[in-house]
Amino acid sequence: MEELSGKKICILSGQGFEDMELMYPLFRLRYEACAHVQVVGMKKGDTLTGEHGMTVTVDESLDKVRPGDFDALVIPGGHSPDNIRIIPEIVKFVQDFAKTGKPIAAICHAPQLLITAKLLDGLDATGWKSIKVDMENAGARYHDKPLVTSRQYIFSRNPGDCGYFCNAIIRALTETGEQPSAEAVRAV
Amino acid sequence: MEELSGKKICILSGQGFEDMELMYPLFRLRYEACAHVQVVGMKKGDTLTGEHGMTVTVDESLDKVRPGDFDALVIPGGHSPDNIRIIPEIVKFVQDFAKTGKPIAAICHAPQLLITAKLLDGLDATGWKSIKVDMENAGARYHDKPLVTSRQYIFSRNPGDCGYFCNAIIRALTETGEQPSAEAVRAV
Repeated sequence: MEELSGKKICILSGQGFEDMELMYPLFRLRYEACAHVQVVGMKKGDTLTGEHGMTVTVDESLDKVRPGDFDALVIPGGHSPDNIRIIPEIVKFVQDFAKTGKPIAAICHAPQLLITAKLLDGLDATGWKSIKVDMENAGARYHDKPLVTSRQYIFSRNPGDCGYFCNAIIRALTETGEQPSAEAVRAV
Repeated sequence: MEELSGKKICILSGQGFEDMELMYPLFRLRYEACAHVQVVGMKKGDTLTGEHGMTVTVDESLDKVRPGDFDALVIPGGHSPDNIRIIPEIVKFVQDFAKTGKPIAAICHAPQLLITAKLLDGLDATGWKSIKVDMENAGARYHDKPLVTSRQYIFSRNPGDCGYFCNAIIRALTETGEQPSAEAVRAV
């Protein structure tokens, strides 16, 4: 409890997020681990609506934040990643964040955004089963596991993996000086 | 992670639950703490819909379960507690569960069900602010805190308290031989 007090986390989303893939990390990291979590979208104050009807307010506009403002980037799945990967400013933010070496956590369809950002090549990864082929075509090695970590990246497949996903984010931010395991795949 | 492996938890709900007050404990306890969590309602297979549109399927019918089947009872808020407290079988189940001495966790409007079950008298408690008067009229001492524990009971006020709420449930089930603190109010 409160293990991420003082840490800052960016949840990057657009419309159509998978409800629990945004809401569970938001609640887990903000209200239980007590990180400072901001939902970042194109415009502060916008209401984003999930596939199943949950809503969340954008805390900060993309053009007001920089990768240096955060200790980790979390990208929920659903339709959101495909909706926002056509926005050049979003793609550039993710690319710039990747250069910092800090953790990037992507669940379900979130790897679509990483494909567009040309960040998947050579990674072990997982994601929603329908985009396995796209991930492999982009150069990733796909594993059907609830959690796969590779360099600074944390991957999960679907809402039911949210526990492993958030646990890995917390671990990445609390293990002294340690980013997500450099092992190709962390078995769970 | 997986600290509740082998534990069994009942989430008792009807229609109109507060979405995150059911879904967060469900995900936190089932997918991260790895307890065996069952959503119990009047009829197995029913679809319950939250106030904001999330849906969940009833895993087991009330008439198929007994208090002895579970290590803890969790009651989400929203409109659900008021909807189900008029069902005598629901009230009797909660009363029978209370007799076991095992943890009962109630958030937001869930104390309404405990009022009908005549279980609040003499307890320190919290809940959604609108029912403070009802809780006090039923004999509880109301505290405006994110977490209040009293005997076997765990109380929180609203969705933003979910982190403290779930953490207290986990603590109650993992501290060796210890039910929620016997202190009148656990400060957080």
